[in-house]
Amino acid sequence: MRAWVESIAERARSRLGQGRVADYIPALARQEADRFGIAIYTNEGELYTAGDAREAFSIQSISKLFLLTLSLRVFGNALWERVGLNPSGMPFNSLTQLEVERGKPRNPFINAGAIVVTDHLVSAFATPSQYLQDVARRLSGDNRVLIDREVLESEWQHRSRNAAMAYLMKAFGNIDNEVDDVLYAYFACCALGMSCADLAVALNYLAASGYSLQAQEQIVEPELARKINSILFTSGMYDAAGEFAYRVGLPAKSGVGGGIAAIVPGRMSVCVWSPALDINGNSVAGQYALELLANELG
Amino acid sequence: MRAWVESIAERARSRLGQGRVADYIPALARQEADRFGIAIYTNEGELYTAGDAREAFSIQSISKLFLLTLSLRVFGNALWERVGLNPSGMPFNSLTQLEVERGKPRNPFINAGAIVVTDHLVSAFATPSQYLQDVARRLSGDNRVLIDREVLESEWQHRSRNAAMAYLMKAFGNIDNEVDDVLYAYFACCALGMSCADLAVALNYLAASGYSLQAQEQIVEPELARKINSILFTSGMYDAAGEFAYRVGLPAKSGVGGGIAAIVPGRMSVCVWSPALDINGNSVAGQYALELLANELG
Amino acid sequence: MRAWVESIAERARSRLGQGRVADYIPALARQEADRFGIAIYTNEGELYTAGDAREAFSIQSISKLFLLTLSLRVFGNALWERVGLNPSGMPFNSLTQLEVERGKPRNPFINAGAIVVTDHLVSAFATPSQYLQDVARRLSGDNRVLIDREVLESEWQHRSRNAAMAYLMKAFGNIDNEVDDVLYAYFACCALGMSCADLAVALNYLAASGYSLQAQEQIVEPELARKINSILFTSGMYDAAGEFAYRVGLPAKSGVGGGIAAIVPGRMSVCVWSPALDINGNSVAGQYALELLANELG
Amino acid sequence: MRAWVESIAERARSRLGQGRVADYIPALARQEADRFGIAIYTNEGELYTAGDAREAFSIQSISKLFLLTLSLRVFGNALWERVGLNPSGMPFNSLTQLEVERGKPRNPFINAGAIVVTDHLVSAFATPSQYLQDVARRLSGDNRVLIDREVLESEWQHRSRNAAMAYLMKAFGNIDNEVDDVLYAYFACCALGMSCADLAVALNYLAASGYSLQAQEQIVEPELARKINSILFTSGMYDAAGEFAYRVGLPAKSGVGGGIAAIVPGRMSVCVWSPALDINGNSVAGQYALELLANELG
Repeated sequence: MRAWVESIAERARSRLGQGRVADYIPALARQEADRFGIAIYTNEGELYTAGDAREAFSIQSISKLFLLTLSLRVFGNALWERVGLNPSGMPFNSLTQLEVERGKPRNPFINAGAIVVTDHLVSAFATPSQYLQDVARRLSGDNRVLIDREVLESEWQHRSRNAAMAYLMKAFGNIDNEVDDVLYAYFACCALGMSCADLAVALNYLAASGYSLQAQEQIVEPELARKINSILFTSGMYDAAGEFAYRVGLPAKSGVGGGIAAIVPGRMSVCVWSPALDINGNSVAGQYALELLANELG
Repeated sequence: MRAWVESIAERARSRLGQGRVADYIPALARQEADRFGIAIYTNEGELYTAGDAREAFSIQSISKLFLLTLSLRVFGNALWERVGLNPSGMPFNSLTQLEVERGKPRNPFINAGAIVVTDHLVSAFATPSQYLQDVARRLSGDNRVLIDREVLESEWQHRSRNAAMAYLMKAFGNIDNEVDDVLYAYFACCALGMSCADLAVALNYLAASGYSLQAQEQIVEPELARKINSILFTSGMYDAAGEFAYRVGLPAKSGVGGGIAAIVPGRMSVCVWSPALDINGNSVAGQYALELLANELG
Repeated sequence: MRAWVESIAERARSRLGQGRVADYIPALARQEADRFGIAIYTNEGELYTAGDAREAFSIQSISKLFLLTLSLRVFGNALWERVGLNPSGMPFNSLTQLEVERGKPRNPFINAGAIVVTDHLVSAFATPSQYLQDVARRLSGDNRVLIDREVLESEWQHRSRNAAMAYLMKAFGNIDNEVDDVLYAYFACCALGMSCADLAVALNYLAASGYSLQAQEQIVEPELARKINSILFTSGMYDAAGEFAYRVGLPAKSGVGGGIAAIVPGRMSVCVWSPALDINGNSVAGQYALELLANELG
Repeated sequence: MRAWVESIAERARSRLGQGRVADYIPALARQEADRFGIAIYTNEGELYTAGDAREAFSIQSISKLFLLTLSLRVFGNALWERVGLNPSGMPFNSLTQLEVERGKPRNPFINAGAIVVTDHLVSAFATPSQYLQDVARRLSGDNRVLIDREVLESEWQHRSRNAAMAYLMKAFGNIDNEVDDVLYAYFACCALGMSCADLAVALNYLAASGYSLQAQEQIVEPELARKINSILFTSGMYDAAGEFAYRVGLPAKSGVGGGIAAIVPGRMSVCVWSPALDINGNSVAGQYALELLANELG
């Protein structure tokens, strides 16, 4: 197993040099393009890593998975009155669809959807990003997990498009709190710094019928874990969900920091990281590593 | 002439009872639906009025005409690099087109366009709404012209959709100043209270080759007055510009306060007011009065 | 006057070399880019020409103006139940708006609108294109006006996009006849060959309160002539109607054959021709000639 | 097992009375709303049925699955140059997205995508619908499988919207053959009449790593079977793919005839039929039966 993980890492590194590091905020643009890490955490509790698997990176949209889990735990299916469940078929930050569909985002993994989920959490928790940081520490067992203040401020400075989406949803009555408060909490969650190893351990509950071995706790019911994996499969990889499903066939969530978390239900959770992205915003080397892994797992 | 104006007012009053008063902000919703006023100001300086022509109402989008005039005086054709000149073919507050066209609004008479024009003025003047109030007083000769603070605060409270547009344009680099500053100035201009008589006098320069008889000043060059009238003709009546051009055939600008200012080039300026609006946001009785006027003028 | 027309022609020729000849069908692509003609027909019946004003070209979308006139004569305002009156804000051959608005085209000067108008005429006349040819001959006084069979066949071969629009409207119940029959008649009208002189004479009724001096006949009532001019002003120049109104300020209709017919109400009709088009599909040198003419007419 | 299938059928019948039978063509509109059938075919070759499982119905869009399989067998990945792999996020017969994306349909399970796939097959086979009928007979082992001529003619009569899509794609160069030929072949495939038992047996290769027990033939490679299931999961249930994935979690394809074929990889294939559809065009009782089945399978 250890050799196999090393072998995947070695082959995936052949894709370094392709793609571009996200540059919409300076704090991300300065990442080095040739980093690569992978971590696998089996349902038996074994952790296998290769490359830069212990280095914290900005998890960005992978945080949407934590946000969704927390919201479903607190609010249950009431969430689905305000957020849809279907693929969007549009870029992840599109306003057109949001206007046509009167402020109800297509799913919780596009920005607009995650902002509504955050609005839920802002209503429920005094400091939702602090709460999320605690949860991430508990699930990963790593107390160094931290919101990166520099990334957070940089996101806030460049908030215009997300602010446009949030105000549009507020115009349709789908944001309860002040837009600034919701956005700040949302960016704080995006700015969490975690490593491949952290994420593989933290998200293993989705591979293990909702149970977190690390936290020794049933995070969500088995059926809900199955359902979250279904949303990941249909909507987790931005506008390339179908292509990724075709090539790789695993539920997964990517972030513009270069991370991708993937689930092999009943067996393991995986996290890869490499900052250079393709035009859909998904890590080039990361996707290739997951393709190799999926094909060789059978 | 006086009898004819009275006759138009009397016939237009037959349409009272149709349409709905704008209700998106409380300050407008409380207007009485059965008010009607008309004022005609000839290029020779004669003023004819009927009905509630001396009562101040919220000019709302008619302020876009003042904003455009001021901006063209200060910046000239440089404005057209940031705002288009063509009809939008979409509702006046649509975000879809703004996203497809990368933050450049179709024309200065839709909200997004007027917000860009205001951004220009915020860059040029310390307090653009104060400046606009002064201009409106000078052009109308009425020193009671005033920004209605209650309307302004109400607009600000309900700013979500306009904020969404402004942030989307800022995301595309088409807003230079802080969104909140630009919006506040924009709402202040919309909240100007003026009467039919004020507006007919103030806007007569567009009928008189750019010269304001009241202010004794060439406001814009004759060619520019002609050009502004052309934009009014193609884009002044929200999404119903073509229908209004077909029925009435005059350059005109309407506001959701129920006012419509119209220009008869070379002859006169007209302002009608009646708060009940059709589904396109244009005053029902006001449009009918202008239709009668246009047909009978020949 | 004669000298002035020559002078406009000479200055407009300075724009030859800019733009591109339409190439979507071979029969148009072979036009020479450096041709230029202009004809002015005054309401007093005087014809002034310069350049290639006597050479027949493919009138293409200018035929939409004849189609509209005929349809309004036969069906009156019933037409407006099936076609709108507002600017489209979209490219002239867009399907998106047509789908959103359930098969009702925005106005009679975009392709979809003219196809509905043609469907009307197919219901009313045995051979509508033959009828239109007769009308064009009578209005222009030129018996050599002819449908160009080669252009017609070429349009038919490349009908896919227009067929898509026609079938979409039929799906919404807005085409009564067989799509193939309607399209063939529509292309036949587009394929009429007329010269600048022919068109200036033929369309003079729009400048002369609906009366054709050549045909000695009231073609439409004065009010209807005024209304058709309004639609030309708001929707006659494809997606650049507003820019053209701003620069030139005359009701006009252009065609991808390079012709533009313009109306100076109460005074004259004008037709210019030069095959090289800008990105909006309007003749480069033709527009410039009209801009000179409008500015110098005052 | 037999008792369980009966139990599912009994509980699913409680949903009869909800939804509406498709009425866009008369031949479908006359189906009785209260029919229900289910068939399960295990990878071991055992067939379990309940209700109207032996009655042929119009498979409609389920034929897209056969079309895709045949096309991938003949053309391999070359297909993906002309058809995408991602969820559409739009209604299955939308033209807007097709226009924005320049005639390349989002995936092979929306109408536009299946029409391109059919165009492929028209290029490859003399009579593709005849060929498809033969394949369906061989895979199901039922020689009575037949193209229903009445349904075919009815589809042809009401082809306007599909014709609009096909012509739009042809305008973008993505249809090689005559539109009429492609549409006729496409409708013929949609008009295949098959029973639940036929479809469960015929599509079992997707549950069995590409091998058809009935035909004793490897239909597609195991990896390709896995990939087709991924497309089914992300795009098989029209615009409700995400909701169905969340509730049921199985790759599936539905048709407006009321049938839904679902795959349980490694275990079995299932087909349910009940004509009354929800607003997304999916069988109400059929979806519920699959939800029960998925939850109880674990």
